Amino acid sequence: MELKQFTGICRESINLINLNPLQRGGLLSEEARRVAPDWIDGYSVCDFCGGCLDRIKKPPIEEFVHKALPEFLDCDVVRLTNGAREAKFAIMHSVCREGDTILMDGNAHYSSYVAAERARLKIELIENSGHPEFKINEDDYAKRIDEVKPKLVLLTYPDGNYGNLPDARRVGKICAEHDVPFLLNCAYAIGRMPISAKKTGADFIVGSGHKSMASSGPIGVLGMKKEWEDIVLRKSEKYKGKEVEVLGCGPRGFSTITLMASFPSVVERVKNWDKEVENSQYFIKSIEAIGGIKQLGVRPTEHDLNFLEAEIFYEISQKHKKKGFFLYHELKKRGIVGIKPGLTKNFKLSTYQLNKEELKKVIDSFQEISRMN
Amino acid sequence: MELKQFTGICRESINLINLNPLQRGGLLSEEARRVAPDWIDGYSVCDFCGGCLDRIKKPPIEEFVHKALPEFLDCDVVRLTNGAREAKFAIMHSVCREGDTILMDGNAHYSSYVAAERARLKIELIENSGHPEFKINEDDYAKRIDEVKPKLVLLTYPDGNYGNLPDARRVGKICAEHDVPFLLNCAYAIGRMPISAKKTGADFIVGSGHKSMASSGPIGVLGMKKEWEDIVLRKSEKYKGKEVEVLGCGPRGFSTITLMASFPSVVERVKNWDKEVENSQYFIKSIEAIGGIKQLGVRPTEHDLNFLEAEIFYEISQKHKKKGFFLYHELKKRGIVGIKPGLTKNFKLSTYQLNKEELKKVIDSFQEISRMN
Repeated sequence: MELKQFTGICRESINLINLNPLQRGGLLSEEARRVAPDWIDGYSVCDFCGGCLDRIKKPPIEEFVHKALPEFLDCDVVRLTNGAREAKFAIMHSVCREGDTILMDGNAHYSSYVAAERARLKIELIENSGHPEFKINEDDYAKRIDEVKPKLVLLTYPDGNYGNLPDARRVGKICAEHDVPFLLNCAYAIGRMPISAKKTGADFIVGSGHKSMASSGPIGVLGMKKEWEDIVLRKSEKYKGKEVEVLGCGPRGFSTITLMASFPSVVERVKNWDKEVENSQYFIKSIEAIGGIKQLGVRPTEHDLNFLEAEIFYEISQKHKKKGFFLYHELKKRGIVGIKPGLTKNFKLSTYQLNKEELKKVIDSFQEISRMN
Repeated sequence: MELKQFTGICRESINLINLNPLQRGGLLSEEARRVAPDWIDGYSVCDFCGGCLDRIKKPPIEEFVHKALPEFLDCDVVRLTNGAREAKFAIMHSVCREGDTILMDGNAHYSSYVAAERARLKIELIENSGHPEFKINEDDYAKRIDEVKPKLVLLTYPDGNYGNLPDARRVGKICAEHDVPFLLNCAYAIGRMPISAKKTGADFIVGSGHKSMASSGPIGVLGMKKEWEDIVLRKSEKYKGKEVEVLGCGPRGFSTITLMASFPSVVERVKNWDKEVENSQYFIKSIEAIGGIKQLGVRPTEHDLNFLEAEIFYEISQKHKKKGFFLYHELKKRGIVGIKPGLTKNFKLSTYQLNKEELKKVIDSFQEISRMN
């Protein structure tokens, strides 16, 4: 086997505009990029470890995990995990037992579903309203909790397809009234927009470092109310310092450093969320003006992640020699990537942190391409 | 809170000789370091993903996971995980059910134990022989399997305290005779020394990218016999492409790129294992000649990771104003780190990949410090 194929690989997208929603919030901050050379080796953060990742003082992971992050998420206790999905599984696996039922929104990310399957739970869904809004009716939670008697309730905020932001506080209130723990999946929220676990009444809140906190993957955050600490963060019977659900320690290396180094800039950027939503609404308005493109999900959009129905691109693809791949190629010619090759009619994208010039370039490109019809 | 504390953090050990066994095998290769700037953002490897990490063709993760790694480990099937511990849990959680028994060696890493606790297994241990060899008697497995009827057997090869290399093939044979699946934990072997899953008869083999494969953490490898694929890598019922035990996808980002970019150099370095053992034996011989220092574990050492009993440093610490911390400070003055601050009498270290000059420096330093007595 030719082993050289694994070395010297450049990333094609590195200097292009990447519209993939799961890439836009994970671009490293300048601060994280600057410290990278020191910390990219193996188990780098463990030089001065006494046996517990979140108690390392040098670098200041303890201060970060036990003070900065709980303040940022507005919750009592935080741990680092290998991602939002790993955090969700840790919660499901410790709060529920095999055969228990979890109730989640029909817009839940596949990883919520797979985490529940891994925990061997019965999965009940609350269907969305279907085309064009795909909205979750918060009040359905009350009825469905009575019906299926879940041990845990999950809400996706926002979902990763339509960027819909259901009323999390309303669901939190329903869960509290029914005395069911409430898990809020904020993989596309924490690090992009202001979030308070306490205000939504969430027992658990999870976020993704690589998706939305300017971090190198894989890394996530798991926040919770203090009352769950003894259950979710229970210690090993033999190794008293080791928490069982994170297998002793979570992300052991560079990803933790990037989450921490990017954190001050993430705290800042969250304050500009209104501006991001404004940009997103401006973008949608501009491309809908082309004709034949429509934003699905709740309108007007309240998030940078949006789902488009683009009849016009579908029509072009029917006549184009590259078929469904024409859109990918046309965008790439213009320095834009992130829409899945092959898609034309339905696709999602994000305008998060695009500057004015980049936003204009994307809009102009959509306009130009639409004229191929 | 002062957020600036989280930025601009330098790694003190970066230009020093680091003797910490968990750091020596994780130093990035030049190749991995070279491609870092392109790949350290968020979910970098997912640009051209069709929904499954190990099927990504660009970068060539599919070729790496499905061809290069199975060949390297000499096993049928490989997946990437967030670390060796995450791989062990995935195996335990899918092969066993709550309440089942796992039988492991008494030298097992804490993470093997914690993974079994997380899977809610009963844990039975095979005690080592105690001071000074701490040896696992392979034949004990036969007797203990009959006694405790485990659903899974684990052996640590080598263990992370003494660097003892038990006869894995012998244990594999016993497991086969008793028809119990056999998991070999090679976190300190894969990437350092030649390993063949098939030759040892292991059903499962796990390795650590950040510990021994020149990779940025967190990342690990999970190898298995084909017959276990349907159990350990079972797919989601709803999301047909997603494997449940890796929650859909394993390490989503830079760590995967480093494992791949370093791989050709790792394949090469494994060929020099005899030289590494020679260096390790030379090192032990040299520092034992000082007097008052003795290598514990099986002798002569067969691994770069060694456990020392250093009466002479303990004696010095009793009189020194820095007490137990004197050794750490004396070594650091000489540009050497990696022995836990506070330890003098018993500690472990590794000489892996130290060049002649560095090896000499460490030996000379031990000699100089011993003269403080």
